Amino acid sequence: MQKILKIRKLLKSKKIEAILIASSYNKFYLANLYSGSGYVFVTKRSQYVIVDFRYYKQVKEDTKGFTVIEQTRANKLENILNKIIHDEEIRTIGFEGDYIVYDAFSNLDTNLEAQLVPVSLEALRCLKSTEEIHLIAEAAEITDKAFSHILDYIQCGMSEKQVENELVRCIRECGGIKESFDIIVASGERGALPHGKASDKKICAGELVTIDFGVNLKHYCSDMTRTFAMGYVKDAKLVEIYEVVKRAQEEAIKQIRSGIRAGEIDAAARSIIQAEGYGEYFGHNLGHGMGIMVHEYPALCPDSSVILEAGMVVTVEPGIYIPQLGGVRIEDDILVTKEGAIPLTKSPRELIIVKG
Amino acid sequence: MQKILKIRKLLKSKKIEAILIASSYNKFYLANLYSGSGYVFVTKRSQYVIVDFRYYKQVKEDTKGFTVIEQTRANKLENILNKIIHDEEIRTIGFEGDYIVYDAFSNLDTNLEAQLVPVSLEALRCLKSTEEIHLIAEAAEITDKAFSHILDYIQCGMSEKQVENELVRCIRECGGIKESFDIIVASGERGALPHGKASDKKICAGELVTIDFGVNLKHYCSDMTRTFAMGYVKDAKLVEIYEVVKRAQEEAIKQIRSGIRAGEIDAAARSIIQAEGYGEYFGHNLGHGMGIMVHEYPALCPDSSVILEAGMVVTVEPGIYIPQLGGVRIEDDILVTKEGAIPLTKSPRELIIVKG
Repeated sequence: MQKILKIRKLLKSKKIEAILIASSYNKFYLANLYSGSGYVFVTKRSQYVIVDFRYYKQVKEDTKGFTVIEQTRANKLENILNKIIHDEEIRTIGFEGDYIVYDAFSNLDTNLEAQLVPVSLEALRCLKSTEEIHLIAEAAEITDKAFSHILDYIQCGMSEKQVENELVRCIRECGGIKESFDIIVASGERGALPHGKASDKKICAGELVTIDFGVNLKHYCSDMTRTFAMGYVKDAKLVEIYEVVKRAQEEAIKQIRSGIRAGEIDAAARSIIQAEGYGEYFGHNLGHGMGIMVHEYPALCPDSSVILEAGMVVTVEPGIYIPQLGGVRIEDDILVTKEGAIPLTKSPRELIIVKG
Repeated sequence: MQKILKIRKLLKSKKIEAILIASSYNKFYLANLYSGSGYVFVTKRSQYVIVDFRYYKQVKEDTKGFTVIEQTRANKLENILNKIIHDEEIRTIGFEGDYIVYDAFSNLDTNLEAQLVPVSLEALRCLKSTEEIHLIAEAAEITDKAFSHILDYIQCGMSEKQVENELVRCIRECGGIKESFDIIVASGERGALPHGKASDKKICAGELVTIDFGVNLKHYCSDMTRTFAMGYVKDAKLVEIYEVVKRAQEEAIKQIRSGIRAGEIDAAARSIIQAEGYGEYFGHNLGHGMGIMVHEYPALCPDSSVILEAGMVVTVEPGIYIPQLGGVRIEDDILVTKEGAIPLTKSPRELIIVKG
């Protein structure tokens, strides 16, 4: 019920009397319902889950502390909500403006007898409970295990796609539900693409390979990147940028603790990369929060004034990408505490050279 | 350019002067850009792709017949669009009301110097080209191959999840990008859940197992369901409902041809299931269109007056689900032609009994 209290606080601060929640991630967080169907509706004094027959029985069993209402052709969402609106004299209802599509908004706006107000729930899940931290740490552990397996498995001549497929197999074998996003395997020049999804390109000796992947475990995510070399490193410049990225990441991680601004962490890494003359080749944010979604609040980005708090989990992932040469990114999942950073992903950060 | 002409026809019929397309599926269909980022903008006389630096080079190479514009911090989407709005004297712009979230709509509505109008593009992709049909057929072929492999692989004592993992491995090994949706493996009583995702439940002798899965191949999907028995069938009633479902599916497929109403196809299957007394246990639509998305227009549902046309690809998937007993669903992907139905998935439809 801790989580419902967070929502009630939000109702107060946004001066609204209820909120309708439709996103699977927030429904799962609040009511243990991970599905694109169904709604959670929280008012000042009650909380409801509204689902159709497919989920009714399961929600009744799994979800404690909510009134569960079955939505049918005869008893539509708007009828159910309007009844509550009248019973509890609700005038304003918040909704997830960054989730509800226009047509769904428009339909609710026409049919509900209360005013709809877009609200942001982005910060709702940013402080993780002990249980959530354990799940993320467990996902991170599988991530480390799968990466270690890939170092043994990968060989020159394999395609990036083949490496991706083996990672997917390994993640599932280790108990992950699935990969937490489409896996990036970018070798050689393709390493210059920050989002280079695994392709049919063959991996060659002397190349760097960047692998960015994560594990979805019981709906909690991990997200890790490592860059390593096949046999040797063809171009000495790649070794140089590897060391810059590594130093930038370590410095950023060193500065993480509750109370510091997210923008300062980004700056800690970015200033090192800039000082070495690679500033223009680091075109993305330093990191992002992570939990039920692989990208959550807060962003670690330039000038962010968000204050980090103990219990946040963020990624730290500086990178340098040089067209026609290649790229390096190193990324870890970090738990923020009062004392400092606790890395949840623990794979080695020094440049690994696998035997080609 | 055939596809752009479809859009221009839509502009005319909806009395709008341009359309902004944001969904990955429609951007891929029109401009070969499969990404959550970027936009396709089609006016009466021009067509544009607007992307940031990450995609600019690739789109320049891959996308023919479009003006490619780079979106930057200085040259934002709204600036780019407002310039075109002025140059081409555009007053009304359509957008995908079933895709654009409220906040994004609201931002565009505030900043664009034209009126925004929600439009439905749901029927845009329903008639498949020869090339698209070949891709779907190829995805269906991998689906058949993977299913045949699973029949050899599955054994009593394995968990549903283990079967799912092997399917994923096999799909990727056969060249699929990935599974086209989260795989359903529902055995024994769980077969009564139409959406029973693979769980840790062990598969036992005498049970029916329903597997519903598909392959994503080059961004085109297949979607097939088969139900089979482990060693023998514990409950004779399950054999009886299997035969009813099979007969319902065959009758529906037999009636498919261009010119018939989708509702009639649904009725062909449903009336057989109802006549056998199982009407209340068939709680979903008979099928759906399929292509870049696994669920597309048109739905094969009761009372639909949509007329099937040659070139549509639809699923036909009747099912009977009996709580505390189990369920049966049989699903194939069907190409609609003037002469009748051409099944693209070709796995046997009779009840297979695998050796336990």
